[in-house]
Amino acid sequence: MTGIATRADAERLDAGDPLGRFKDAFDLPDGVIYLDGNSLGPLPKATPARLEEVARREWGGDLIKSWDKHGWMDYANRLGDKIAGLIGAGDGEVVVADSTSVNLYKVLSAALRMRPGRTKIVSEIGNFPTDLYIAQGLTGADSGRELLMAEKAGIVPAIDGDTAVVSLTQVDYRTGEMHDMAAMTEAAHAAGAIMVWDLSHSAGAVPVGLNAANADMAVGCGYKYLNGGPGAPAFLFVAERHQNSFEQPLSGWIGHARPFDFLPDYEPADGVSRYLCGTPGIIAMAALEVGVDLMAEADMSAIRRKSIRLSELFIERVEATCGEYGLELISPRSPEIRGSQAGFTHSNGYPVMQALIERGVIGDFRAPDILRFGFTPLYLGFADVWDAVEILRDVLASGVWTGEKYSRRGMVT
Amino acid sequence: MTGIATRADAERLDAGDPLGRFKDAFDLPDGVIYLDGNSLGPLPKATPARLEEVARREWGGDLIKSWDKHGWMDYANRLGDKIAGLIGAGDGEVVVADSTSVNLYKVLSAALRMRPGRTKIVSEIGNFPTDLYIAQGLTGADSGRELLMAEKAGIVPAIDGDTAVVSLTQVDYRTGEMHDMAAMTEAAHAAGAIMVWDLSHSAGAVPVGLNAANADMAVGCGYKYLNGGPGAPAFLFVAERHQNSFEQPLSGWIGHARPFDFLPDYEPADGVSRYLCGTPGIIAMAALEVGVDLMAEADMSAIRRKSIRLSELFIERVEATCGEYGLELISPRSPEIRGSQAGFTHSNGYPVMQALIERGVIGDFRAPDILRFGFTPLYLGFADVWDAVEILRDVLASGVWTGEKYSRRGMVT
Repeated sequence: MTGIATRADAERLDAGDPLGRFKDAFDLPDGVIYLDGNSLGPLPKATPARLEEVARREWGGDLIKSWDKHGWMDYANRLGDKIAGLIGAGDGEVVVADSTSVNLYKVLSAALRMRPGRTKIVSEIGNFPTDLYIAQGLTGADSGRELLMAEKAGIVPAIDGDTAVVSLTQVDYRTGEMHDMAAMTEAAHAAGAIMVWDLSHSAGAVPVGLNAANADMAVGCGYKYLNGGPGAPAFLFVAERHQNSFEQPLSGWIGHARPFDFLPDYEPADGVSRYLCGTPGIIAMAALEVGVDLMAEADMSAIRRKSIRLSELFIERVEATCGEYGLELISPRSPEIRGSQAGFTHSNGYPVMQALIERGVIGDFRAPDILRFGFTPLYLGFADVWDAVEILRDVLASGVWTGEKYSRRGMVT
Repeated sequence: MTGIATRADAERLDAGDPLGRFKDAFDLPDGVIYLDGNSLGPLPKATPARLEEVARREWGGDLIKSWDKHGWMDYANRLGDKIAGLIGAGDGEVVVADSTSVNLYKVLSAALRMRPGRTKIVSEIGNFPTDLYIAQGLTGADSGRELLMAEKAGIVPAIDGDTAVVSLTQVDYRTGEMHDMAAMTEAAHAAGAIMVWDLSHSAGAVPVGLNAANADMAVGCGYKYLNGGPGAPAFLFVAERHQNSFEQPLSGWIGHARPFDFLPDYEPADGVSRYLCGTPGIIAMAALEVGVDLMAEADMSAIRRKSIRLSELFIERVEATCGEYGLELISPRSPEIRGSQAGFTHSNGYPVMQALIERGVIGDFRAPDILRFGFTPLYLGFADVWDAVEILRDVLASGVWTGEKYSRRGMVT
C-alpha cells in the first residue's frame, strides 16, 4: 500500500519531491503524460543548444581540427566514463559506440573466443529479440555452436561446462522482471562461462553494480532512460581484468592501437578502446552526453525510491479502479525484482493503447497483448501517475477503443 | 595546361562557374581555404536548422510517435535511395546504417557466405587500413581463410578460383588513384568472385556507376564529400540481383522481416533492409540528409569537370612555383584516373602541413610523408586554389615549418 489515497496526496508528494526540479530540464509537450521513457526518453531542454554548438562551433568553426581541439577523438571514452558512474563500473571500463546490437555482437564474439572449445550460448527465450538474433548470427548451422534459449527458471540448469557465455538482459523488456545480477553471474562463473549483461532497460532506471556483481561484459542503450535521442549510440562495458585478453572481429581502424599510423596490420588498442570500430558519430554523442549528464546529476538511490513508489501507485490504482476490464499484471508484484516499468495484458491491448495515446497518456504496446508503462522519476510525478490511471479507466469504461479507427496495427517501437 | 596564368584568370573562371552558387550553402570560416573536404566535409548552412527541427519538433514534440509520423522507421531506406542517385544505383539498392567499417564487415561476411568453399579475400596493400583490418577480422588464424594484400598491379593476377571476394577502395585515400571499376569487377566475376567496392573517396567526388559496372556490393562514407558531419552514418549497396540471396551475421532486429512482432527467431527482411542491424540513429541521419540533398542538387558531371580543372590548376601551380622545395607528386598525372584529390610527398610533410594549416590552408598529412589536398567543387573556387599554392610556396620558402612548434606529431584525421 502506497498510502496515496487521493490526488491531493499525490500532489503533496510531488511538492516535496527532491527530484521534482528535474522535470523542468525536459521539454515535454503540453497535455502529455509520458509513460514511454523506457522506449524513447524525451528531449532534454539543453540538447538543441548542444547540437547547435557541436555543429556550428565545433564542426563548422574548427572543421577537421576539432578531432583534437574539441576532444572528438576520445569522446567515446570520456562519455563512457560518465556512463560507468551510472552502472557501477570504473573509469576506462566503458566506451560509447555503435548500436546495442552491434555491441552485443562484439562482446559475444569476444566471449566465445575467450572460451575456445565451448560451443554454447545460453540465453532466455523472453530476451529482447535483437539479443537472440545477434546470438543466432554467431551460432548458425555451420558455426559448430548453438544458442540455447531457456525459460527463466531453466537458465541456471542450462549452464554447463560447454557453455561459453550466458547472455541476459537484466530487466525484461515486457514484464520488467529483474534478474539477480550477482547470483546469475556467479552461476555462470561457477561453470567457467563468461557473463554478458544487456542493460538497455537498467541504465538510468535502476542501480546497477557491474563490478560489485563481478560481471564480465555488458552493453546498453542510450535512447531509453539515458535520454540520448532516437537511435543514440550505445555503450559497452568490459571488466578491467579482461581488458587486454579479448579479441573481437569488428576490428575497425578506431580500435587500432595507432590508427593514424595507417599500418596495414590490425593491432588492437589497449583496454576497452579495442571495442571501437568505425569513426565515432560525434553529433549523436553530443546529444547523448546531455542526457547522461542530467542522469549523473541525480542521485540513483533517490531515483530508485521514487521509481518504486510511482510504479506501486500505478499498479495499486489500476487494480483498484480498472479491475473489471480484464487487465492482468504481468510484472512482478515485488518491487525489489521489478525494473522501472509495469506491464499488463489485455485481450485488446493494441487498440486500448492507441486510444490511451490519443488521450495523451503515452505508453506502448508489445505483441501479442501487452500494455507497457515506464516510470521515469526525473520527469514524472505522482499526480501524473494518478491522472494516467484515471484516463486509462475512462478509456476502458467508455469502450472507445472498439471503434474502427483503433483497429489497425501500426508501428509503435 | 589549364590556361590559367594569373589570379585574374582564376577569378574570371569563378565568376562564370555554374557551381559557384553552392559556396553560399556552406558555412566556412573566414580566412580558411579548405582542402580537406575529402576527410571531413564542412557544415552546410542548413544543417543546424535541420538538427533543431529533428530534435525539437520530431523527437521533442512527437516523442515515440515520430517513428511513424516523421518516417523514422524507413529513414535509412529513403536516405539510401537519395544516395543511390549519386553512385549509379537504383531505388531499393542502398541503405544508410552504422559506420563504413561495420558495413564492410557485413558485405564481406555476406560475400564469403555466397562463395562457400572459397577461402580468399583479395585486397590491395595500400587500401585504407580499416578495409584491411575488417578483412583481417574475417580471416584470422582459425578461420580457414586468408587475406591476400597485393600491390595494385598484382591484384588481377591474384584473383583465382579460390577467391571468394575482391575488396577494393575505388579512389586511393593517399594518392587519389582510381581503379577502373568496370574492368576490375569483370576480372572478379570472370573468376567467380564477388566484387566489393569502398566508395568512401568516390561518393560525391567522382561519377560512380555501380550498376553500369555490374558491381555486387559497396559501402561508403557519409562525412567526406557528402558533408554529413563528423562520424556521419555510412551507406551500403547491394545489387538488386543479390538482394534475397545473401546473409550476414549482424542480424539485429531492424533487419528482421517483422521487427515489431518480437519473434524469437531471426528472419531477414527482404532486400537491402536485411543489412540493417540496430535502431537507426535519427539525429545523425538528419544531418547527413542535408549534405546529400545539396549534393543531389548539383550536376555530377559538372562537379567532375570542375574538380579536374581545380586539381590540374593546383598541380600545375605547385610544380611551377614550388619546384625547388622537394615536393613530389604521388597522384596520377592523368586526371582520368585521379579522384578529387592530389597528394605530394615531402620529407618534412607533417610540420609543413601544420604550418600551412596555421596560415589557413587546411589540407592533411598522411603517414609517413604525404601532404594531401582535396578539391571539392561545391565550395572551392579557382582563386582559392591559386591562393592556396601561393601560401604553400611562402611556407616552403620561409622555412617557418622547421621551428620547434611544428615538430610534434598530433592527430590529424
